Amino acid sequence: MHPAPPPRTAVIGLGAMGLPMARRLATRLPVSGYDIAADRRALLAADGGTDAASPAEAARDAEVVLLAVRDRTQLEEALFGADGAAAALHPGAVTVLTSTVGPDAARAIADRLAGQGILTVDAPVSGGPVRAGDGDLLIVVGAGDEALTAAQPVLDLLASTLTVVGPHPGDGQALKAINQLLAGVHIAAAAEAIALARALGLNLHTVVESLRHGAAGSFMFADRGPRMVETYSAEQPLDVKSRLDIFVKDLGITTGIAKSAHVPVPLAAAAEQLYLLGERSGLAAHDDSSIVTVLSPKEADR
Amino acid sequence: MHPAPPPRTAVIGLGAMGLPMARRLATRLPVSGYDIAADRRALLAADGGTDAASPAEAARDAEVVLLAVRDRTQLEEALFGADGAAAALHPGAVTVLTSTVGPDAARAIADRLAGQGILTVDAPVSGGPVRAGDGDLLIVVGAGDEALTAAQPVLDLLASTLTVVGPHPGDGQALKAINQLLAGVHIAAAAEAIALARALGLNLHTVVESLRHGAAGSFMFADRGPRMVETYSAEQPLDVKSRLDIFVKDLGITTGIAKSAHVPVPLAAAAEQLYLLGERSGLAAHDDSSIVTVLSPKEADR
Repeated sequence: MHPAPPPRTAVIGLGAMGLPMARRLATRLPVSGYDIAADRRALLAADGGTDAASPAEAARDAEVVLLAVRDRTQLEEALFGADGAAAALHPGAVTVLTSTVGPDAARAIADRLAGQGILTVDAPVSGGPVRAGDGDLLIVVGAGDEALTAAQPVLDLLASTLTVVGPHPGDGQALKAINQLLAGVHIAAAAEAIALARALGLNLHTVVESLRHGAAGSFMFADRGPRMVETYSAEQPLDVKSRLDIFVKDLGITTGIAKSAHVPVPLAAAAEQLYLLGERSGLAAHDDSSIVTVLSPKEADR
Repeated sequence: MHPAPPPRTAVIGLGAMGLPMARRLATRLPVSGYDIAADRRALLAADGGTDAASPAEAARDAEVVLLAVRDRTQLEEALFGADGAAAALHPGAVTVLTSTVGPDAARAIADRLAGQGILTVDAPVSGGPVRAGDGDLLIVVGAGDEALTAAQPVLDLLASTLTVVGPHPGDGQALKAINQLLAGVHIAAAAEAIALARALGLNLHTVVESLRHGAAGSFMFADRGPRMVETYSAEQPLDVKSRLDIFVKDLGITTGIAKSAHVPVPLAAAAEQLYLLGERSGLAAHDDSSIVTVLSPKEADR
């Protein structure tokens, strides 16, 4: 018996996450990619993928379609819009939804695809572009066995940690919303800590180094804290590792779910407002650590 | 030349933190202890300390006076009230303020003591009762060289990590306020995450285990998260590792400092309100992880 041949794979959305994922898949699988921006398609083509002219063209003959677009609107357009992927797929194909869109959206899309005999793996990813390219993502999955088995060769190339949350699309999104609640609140808390420490005249390096390993520590305080400190000394905005407006979208999903479930989340709601303030202040496309300057502008206190 | 003899030490306040600190000091130093509760004094006496009838009696002939009381009011009473310690001390003695009282209180008390020739080490501690008894505390210090040298034998027996924040009393309190901002917000965020995950029907053990090591992780999520999950299955309230109302006091200090410094701290303020709600709900003396039941009572959702 021969091992199954590697699945023909389409990647739709070649942005900050989609391109490194597509590039990595293209080292082992036949990959056809689509993005609305031709220069992103060209980058994939230069690394061994195929440049497709539409989602439908990318999906034609694909066994696995990985979607890495920004939000629910883009996801529905890519699948069900003009030249969308869904109409081009054969029954039995599997879609992998890597975007954070919330449980309701994942369930609705999976139901619509199921009507065409297409399987869905709800698989929101965490980890950022560098880890995406290294196959070092955290992926939290909601999918039944058949869909999961069909998508496994693709997921295995992308994830260092894969947690199957439950058997239904939406289950992965639910856990991702919890992840983003904690991540978004922890970044905002780090910003409050750094902004207040600065106003009190404390040495910010001492603050970060003395607190990061103790009871006040978090991944985000250790990761974003030094970048927030650097923000005050840097002449230019920092390189963007993760855009600020991601948390406008993702905390919006989290607080929406919480409202639907009638669970108060006062800190997540306060953090959401803070990211909205940051976006409104012109920081949407800046690194999320720049949120500290909303609480304490560079010219203040020093 | 002989090494300096171990300093005669008084400990005032033999509560959850004061008693284990006093017991540990008594294994190496002559320790005289005072607490308003006679049974706490008896516990120290049984472990090698001396039972003093008042702060003044504990402090008489002491070279180092460690204060481990609850708040600023108790601290001023212990030092400057009837039979207070300050009047009994010799010039050159050093006080060690281990309570979290805020920078203004520490500065005001140190100034008043300095008028009597008494030194002050501002030394708020973190770590809880068990680590207090093991000499494994984090202590953040604001003190000049002379005071620090005089208190060093005592601090060395209590701290595994000692960070000198600055030369002035109040500097340690400022960093402690930042520590408590992060710690208090992280516990509240963990509570929102667990309460929301429960309402969404997720397996709470999966939530904690899959998120604690990633970008959503914090010391408090890893430490309090499992206790919050246990809260929902336990028939009795959990053992109290750290009282909920500590964060009513400490976040009150933090938000007060922030207001004085004109720095917005919307998450810390939301967390403070949540702990006030918890206190008002009868949870003041419960473990702080019980805050999750304010967001999602045990009888809800399941």
